[in-house]
Amino acid sequence: MSRLWSDHVDGLLPYVPGEQPAQPQRLLKLNTNEHPYGPSPRALQAMRDAVNDDLRLYPDYDSSQLCQAIATLHGLRAEQILVGNGSDEVLAHAFNALFLRQGRPLLMPDISYSFYRTYCGLYRIPHKLLPLADDFTIRVEDYIGPHEVVPAGIIFANPNAPTGIALPLEAIAAIASANPDSAVVVDEAYVDFGADSAIALLREHENIAVIHTLSKSRALAGIRVGFIAGNAELIRGVQRVKDSFNSYPLDRVAQAGAMASILDETHFRWACRQVIDERESLAGALRDLGFEVLPSQANFLFARHPRYEGVVIHAALRERGVLVRHFSNPRIAQFLRITVGTPDDSRRLCDSLEAILNEWQQA
Amino acid sequence: MSRLWSDHVDGLLPYVPGEQPAQPQRLLKLNTNEHPYGPSPRALQAMRDAVNDDLRLYPDYDSSQLCQAIATLHGLRAEQILVGNGSDEVLAHAFNALFLRQGRPLLMPDISYSFYRTYCGLYRIPHKLLPLADDFTIRVEDYIGPHEVVPAGIIFANPNAPTGIALPLEAIAAIASANPDSAVVVDEAYVDFGADSAIALLREHENIAVIHTLSKSRALAGIRVGFIAGNAELIRGVQRVKDSFNSYPLDRVAQAGAMASILDETHFRWACRQVIDERESLAGALRDLGFEVLPSQANFLFARHPRYEGVVIHAALRERGVLVRHFSNPRIAQFLRITVGTPDDSRRLCDSLEAILNEWQQA
Repeated sequence: MSRLWSDHVDGLLPYVPGEQPAQPQRLLKLNTNEHPYGPSPRALQAMRDAVNDDLRLYPDYDSSQLCQAIATLHGLRAEQILVGNGSDEVLAHAFNALFLRQGRPLLMPDISYSFYRTYCGLYRIPHKLLPLADDFTIRVEDYIGPHEVVPAGIIFANPNAPTGIALPLEAIAAIASANPDSAVVVDEAYVDFGADSAIALLREHENIAVIHTLSKSRALAGIRVGFIAGNAELIRGVQRVKDSFNSYPLDRVAQAGAMASILDETHFRWACRQVIDERESLAGALRDLGFEVLPSQANFLFARHPRYEGVVIHAALRERGVLVRHFSNPRIAQFLRITVGTPDDSRRLCDSLEAILNEWQQA
Repeated sequence: MSRLWSDHVDGLLPYVPGEQPAQPQRLLKLNTNEHPYGPSPRALQAMRDAVNDDLRLYPDYDSSQLCQAIATLHGLRAEQILVGNGSDEVLAHAFNALFLRQGRPLLMPDISYSFYRTYCGLYRIPHKLLPLADDFTIRVEDYIGPHEVVPAGIIFANPNAPTGIALPLEAIAAIASANPDSAVVVDEAYVDFGADSAIALLREHENIAVIHTLSKSRALAGIRVGFIAGNAELIRGVQRVKDSFNSYPLDRVAQAGAMASILDETHFRWACRQVIDERESLAGALRDLGFEVLPSQANFLFARHPRYEGVVIHAALRERGVLVRHFSNPRIAQFLRITVGTPDDSRRLCDSLEAILNEWQQA
């Protein structure tokens, strides 16, 4: 507490990101769901080309060309897209623009991307956590209601994080139909690794908004680009918040790189395919080691060992230079979230796990 | 209004940035205070080097090396620095972290960077506008008080925008001393063009925070980097807000470019000197054309013609391909804000103005 802080600063719940070591070369980094291969070579070239004396000029504040490219890719109009400095910024603006409604609670899963609760703290949005089912799927009926109070909104990740489990589009459509006066925001950070995008539902459901990031499937976590897609009126609300916060959220280099990445469909499909194939191999290998692995449509696996605590395996892997993610929430404390890397990464991970488990079984 | 928006979205006052034409080559762009020369060649090289497959990885979320470099440059410790995605983002977080205090008003000049009022709207911060004196200087005594209520905080730009007039450090120190329980935020976007930085006051005044941008004096508007400097406890409050909003506000390329720019003192001094020298030449030329020009310590001039309205001259210049900025606020409606460019830019501007004035005098 400081006498110079705002009244609410103590009560914030800042998000804690996964470890980002300064010298990652010696570590196997499977903790923040980064892509194992690099971004589109065309994106790299476009970024290099954008590094010139024009950087003295402000960027296009609406990233118009990028919005148009994203819209074209998804069969939408440019005014249905708003981009931001990573999907976290887009999420923050969406929470502010759509969910801050007098006395009405936001609905979200008890286990999902933990930044959602951070945003509720930042904007003082009342919220109700709806428990996942015992098999860690979202209980669709809980969102359909009827509800005592019309929800301020609904948000979940699809595939959900950190479970990796995806909802089918019919379930999302049913949730949106049952809540016509609430924005339903679907965070599709991981959708390109095998789930169906709710962008297909935008035409029929004006209360759905979909958030994407270029950090995962397009391997551009190092620049910061995300976007929200929805009906133009809903996007206009988010835009009003964005224009009250930062006129120029995306720099010139990021706009150029994102644009080239969006246009490079070939590299994108190849890169997604590598991860999907490796995910299935790795899931098999982990099961062979005795792990229970949830069915994942994401670029990570969520797995637990019946005999050992997640936190203990996490620490043992860390000692061997392998970073995975562990969460302290009691319902998922036994699990590890493991990013899908290259086949070599999987081998190194599984060799380490095997050595650890052998050691413990002999002890 | 939309039934899906948050209750406050209609009441927002989104900021309107200066025109950013898609094809600026054919226009003379003196409307958004960009630097006429490019950034440090070392910054460009560092950015090109940062464009590689490592962009698949998230950046350092605290920009630690960059913060250390900024701290070293200014004789501070790294924990006294927080960087953001342009100084607008830093300002937004500072308003949220420092000025949102139950029932206490923020004090600021009636004429200053208009985004301050936008942030008050975004965070619902009550504020009191203190009129500039007739000569457009800040009336220091109004900030010293005594005040009926302890202010939530105080903010002004120094040099002020769009006037260009700077306050001496003794005045800022007096304001800070008179308001020990209020954060005094000095927005020094333009300080490198001739004013004294209040960073020199941080050791003595723990309630002062200073905000800088790399967009102006370091010619890096096209990447988005700004920072706030202050005592570590005050910065920690802003950090808590930042970590509740976006873990990774600065991408890898921007961090690399900003770092190299901060380390290139030679280019920085040269680039500032060009603008300062040209500012004085241009002020003389504008006075020769009959303009009243306020004394500027910034990279722009604020000038009015005794016979013609600002909006009319603005439009006439626009027709000749010259962009300058005009504000509708009645107290400054007669003025134009003109960015200082190259000597060639000044000639083209003055030739256009001379032609316009001649035409009108003959009409």
